[in-house]
Amino acid sequence: MSHFPTTPRTTGRRLTERLAYDADLVHAILDEALVCHVGFEADGPLVLPMVHARVGDRLYLHVSTGSGAALACPTPACVTVTILDGLVLAKSQFNHSMNYRSVVVRGELVPVTEPAERDLALAAIVEHVWPGRSAASRPGNPKELAATRVLRIDLREVSAKVRTGQAKDEPEDHGLPYWAGIVALALRAGPAVAADHSAPTAPAPDPADRFG
Amino acid sequence: MSHFPTTPRTTGRRLTERLAYDADLVHAILDEALVCHVGFEADGPLVLPMVHARVGDRLYLHVSTGSGAALACPTPACVTVTILDGLVLAKSQFNHSMNYRSVVVRGELVPVTEPAERDLALAAIVEHVWPGRSAASRPGNPKELAATRVLRIDLREVSAKVRTGQAKDEPEDHGLPYWAGIVALALRAGPAVAADHSAPTAPAPDPADRFG
Repeated sequence: MSHFPTTPRTTGRRLTERLAYDADLVHAILDEALVCHVGFEADGPLVLPMVHARVGDRLYLHVSTGSGAALACPTPACVTVTILDGLVLAKSQFNHSMNYRSVVVRGELVPVTEPAERDLALAAIVEHVWPGRSAASRPGNPKELAATRVLRIDLREVSAKVRTGQAKDEPEDHGLPYWAGIVALALRAGPAVAADHSAPTAPAPDPADRFG
Repeated sequence: MSHFPTTPRTTGRRLTERLAYDADLVHAILDEALVCHVGFEADGPLVLPMVHARVGDRLYLHVSTGSGAALACPTPACVTVTILDGLVLAKSQFNHSMNYRSVVVRGELVPVTEPAERDLALAAIVEHVWPGRSAASRPGNPKELAATRVLRIDLREVSAKVRTGQAKDEPEDHGLPYWAGIVALALRAGPAVAADHSAPTAPAPDPADRFG
């Protein structure tokens, strides 16, 4: 089992029992999360949601929101993903919490300009949105590729943080007359709804394959 | 209908038709999102997930993850929330997208130390996790309050971004033999599961009230 090395920038000072550096765990969280939040300096700190895909120890980003224009690369950056797994309701307000799995990647965002790497990254991003989809859609043409920004951050300084399990309270609070427990949360999909211009004979994606 | 003023820091340069500054929309997105992502400088950009609650035009944060120790306040910061509403599968890879509602708040994070404001913020955060819960749990004691960090960022430089609706393709792509459409996504809850120490007679929260 491989691990990311810890650095002063990836070592927390509180609740460190929740921190993890196992590469398989980090990869699984990054692969499951559908969006990431990317932080960088742009006349002050700026955090934008983006779509990502992991290929080995490289994380590729696609600037999917307009204000990403403020992102001048290369630049120091942080990419964070958070998957919310549940709400934790304790008898004490202090012990209210959430169950979650998050990953924080620190490093440098660089533009991907080499065509082979760019094409691989774009295919990975489409696959991340929906597996199999890169073969079931038209790849970018030169005009579209010129309008697409692909960025990369390498997975070097990385930490994961996970909370699981039941609500916890101090023993002296166990007798309080309140409900305590968890409410699990998960992203669920509705049915696939075809656009008017969808090919009538093309198979529709099955959300149950992916979201249960 | 009140609007947030636009500033050079909240005006995008691409897809600006998706940008909005309506206060009601901004408030609704902030109130629905369960977690936010907070960006600030800490030996490079750092983005951490946190729990938040809005009270009027003030956004309160609760540092729920250990590495928040790196957050020295007051500090310039950006708080971003993103609610994912669906996946958009187009016939062209370029037009693949997601339906989402996001808010970006830029400003300064300040510590909340005045007890009345701190108590109001903590109650709002517990209510944000589960409405009604601040009255159905024990408030913090002095030791817990001393260990709790509440931060505030005022809603002054704020923008919302929203994508809704169906997959779109260029007219010349409409004849391609691919499926195109959307898969709606929503956070759904499982049943409330009581902890062993839960009071047997206390009413359990009903996830259907909140998550449908």
